[in-house]
Amino acid sequence: MKFGGTSVADPEKIQRAAERAIAARRRGAAVAVVVSAPGELTDELIALAERVAPDPDGRELDQLVTTGEQVGVALFAMACRARGVPAVSLTGPQAGFEAVGAYGRAQVRRIRTRRILRHLRAGEIVAVAGFQALGPDGDTVTLGRGGSDLSAVALASALKTDFCEIYSDVKGIYTADPRIVHDARKLKTITFEELLELAGAGAQVMQARSLEVAERFGVELHVRSAFHNQPGTRVVAQEDRMLEKAFVSSLALDKSEVRLTVVGVPDRPGTAAKVLSALAAEGTPVDMIIQSAASRGGVNDISFMTPRGGAAKAKKALEAVARRLGAERVDLNEQVAKVSAVGTGFRHSPKIAATMFEALAAHGINIHMISASDLRVSCVVDQKDAESALRALHKAYGLSRGRR
Amino acid sequence: MKFGGTSVADPEKIQRAAERAIAARRRGAAVAVVVSAPGELTDELIALAERVAPDPDGRELDQLVTTGEQVGVALFAMACRARGVPAVSLTGPQAGFEAVGAYGRAQVRRIRTRRILRHLRAGEIVAVAGFQALGPDGDTVTLGRGGSDLSAVALASALKTDFCEIYSDVKGIYTADPRIVHDARKLKTITFEELLELAGAGAQVMQARSLEVAERFGVELHVRSAFHNQPGTRVVAQEDRMLEKAFVSSLALDKSEVRLTVVGVPDRPGTAAKVLSALAAEGTPVDMIIQSAASRGGVNDISFMTPRGGAAKAKKALEAVARRLGAERVDLNEQVAKVSAVGTGFRHSPKIAATMFEALAAHGINIHMISASDLRVSCVVDQKDAESALRALHKAYGLSRGRR
Repeated sequence: MKFGGTSVADPEKIQRAAERAIAARRRGAAVAVVVSAPGELTDELIALAERVAPDPDGRELDQLVTTGEQVGVALFAMACRARGVPAVSLTGPQAGFEAVGAYGRAQVRRIRTRRILRHLRAGEIVAVAGFQALGPDGDTVTLGRGGSDLSAVALASALKTDFCEIYSDVKGIYTADPRIVHDARKLKTITFEELLELAGAGAQVMQARSLEVAERFGVELHVRSAFHNQPGTRVVAQEDRMLEKAFVSSLALDKSEVRLTVVGVPDRPGTAAKVLSALAAEGTPVDMIIQSAASRGGVNDISFMTPRGGAAKAKKALEAVARRLGAERVDLNEQVAKVSAVGTGFRHSPKIAATMFEALAAHGINIHMISASDLRVSCVVDQKDAESALRALHKAYGLSRGRR
Repeated sequence: MKFGGTSVADPEKIQRAAERAIAARRRGAAVAVVVSAPGELTDELIALAERVAPDPDGRELDQLVTTGEQVGVALFAMACRARGVPAVSLTGPQAGFEAVGAYGRAQVRRIRTRRILRHLRAGEIVAVAGFQALGPDGDTVTLGRGGSDLSAVALASALKTDFCEIYSDVKGIYTADPRIVHDARKLKTITFEELLELAGAGAQVMQARSLEVAERFGVELHVRSAFHNQPGTRVVAQEDRMLEKAFVSSLALDKSEVRLTVVGVPDRPGTAAKVLSALAAEGTPVDMIIQSAASRGGVNDISFMTPRGGAAKAKKALEAVARRLGAERVDLNEQVAKVSAVGTGFRHSPKIAATMFEALAAHGINIHMISASDLRVSCVVDQKDAESALRALHKAYGLSRGRR
């Protein structure tokens, strides 16, 4: 079981989480639980650090933030014991997590499971601090992106568990955000590939890295709510559904990106590469690169989406490269959103993309950019149209009537 | 250097504490710093634990509260590094502290100083988490009473440092609480024995256990303010002042205790012992035991002082033993306070006790109980008289004109 920060945000929620672990143990399971830092504790610790040092040292920041998960596991184990159930909390290093790589973005190398297995065999619930491991220098280090999800998946793989339950404040994976689309439906299953595409399309479910690890090591995931007893969504391997034909399983809406356009780039070989290299040098992530056809006297427009946070820096870098290339100017459009349909077998079914364009057109929604793969079709639209686009697509794909 | 919780209560204070360590290093010192948990963090963690489990497990409570000092040292090291000074934070186990005994009240067995010395030799300021050590089971345990003071004194002894500076929100040891006695004077020196007596008399300066360790291992202490640059009070060995004659160095006021009286205990051998055994069995600490002379037809009153917090439980235990002994009743007086004069050579100078009684009588202050040793005279008075008693004694002993 893995409990995210919102699932252990206060003492009452910690007690409810502990009761889930206890119920599973009463049903005969050996239970290892990965616990995140309660609520906003990690963010609070980082804010403290930044008040002490504008650019805190990596080792010291890891020493600081790993206390958050230690608080989480200790409280979790106490809650189990207060209910008469033996339990023990372990830090990442105590639990045998070993990592390589730099502070703040270490990678799990292996898990020495001896101590965990000893506690499990003694009938104890083992609460393991997520997001941390023993680093190469003997200090505690934090894992990079993926955090506690990755700890849970790696531990499930090392312990060869039957499955890994990811508890959070969402009830599972929906056909679209139920706060926007009222007849959105919870999926019973989704494939790893689809969930990876959803994560890439801006759905905040699980970190891509932990999904990749789960798929590679065959860890069966169950994404479910910490606050409701209904089953959530099981994440299954692609093979289970190979014979099914193409269809859309879920929609995603992402307002976290903005559009940058280099306008009037002279149409010479290698210019697009130079633009992208300038961004790569800045470490700017780029999504949906579109180069317009050279319709206006031998000049192109090159557009792409990039995270809102780094947009100003990226624009500055682009303006420098634009001058060198003799391009006209750089435009930044912050009032955009990306709607995506995620599913399977799109490559062989152009109808799925066509349905999207028709539905948006029928609602008078202007499409700025399009990208598509076998598993995803995405359109960038004006932010003001985003929610009506999501509702239109949910209806057009018939997602409220489910096969899964 | 040791910085208490109030000295590192917020980012600004942590930065000021770091600057003190940096200044000492610039003067050529190798600096090891013991840091407490910032502000009220330890109490907040304990409150969280109690909301999760009414009687939290000892091991898990230690796993939880040790994160407080880890936060303190990480922030401290960051603050040093942000000023361009190499620094490293270490948990108690990383710093080589090893302890024996139970969770929550372990005792330092030794300190393996290799890692600390390596960092010090590399010119780094070493920030060590106080109040914690590696326990016998390989887990982090907290030290009992004395906490971070004890960590600092033990480390100073293990490293054979020239001295150990105890930084807190007080400027040093005063002749009396300066908030009550306006001409109270900061002492330049005080002996270990006097400071131990002051701690016993309710002055919240340093924990008795760490003073005992400092005295035994010859650690020179300097009690001083984290927020002012003036020197504080140096704690010196008794020998330095052997030739001086008896005098009072400081007054203490203690409102943390209440008086319990078993009234009308039949005057038979062993009754006092039975009363005290009943309290010992409850773990109730007892101070200033007074048995009145058998003046009323063969019955005694037995009175003593005990901490306010445990008074209700103690009264219940006493009522049980009072019934068995045929005593009349048990009285609880919560409106009392204890004023004490601490100094040296009282045994040979009855004038010091006499001065106290005369000064209190001259101000019409009623004395409930008296106890005296070579180093201390204490009187229990009504709580409403406590502060005027302190001022009267400060004047009677001439403490505003100092020899030290």
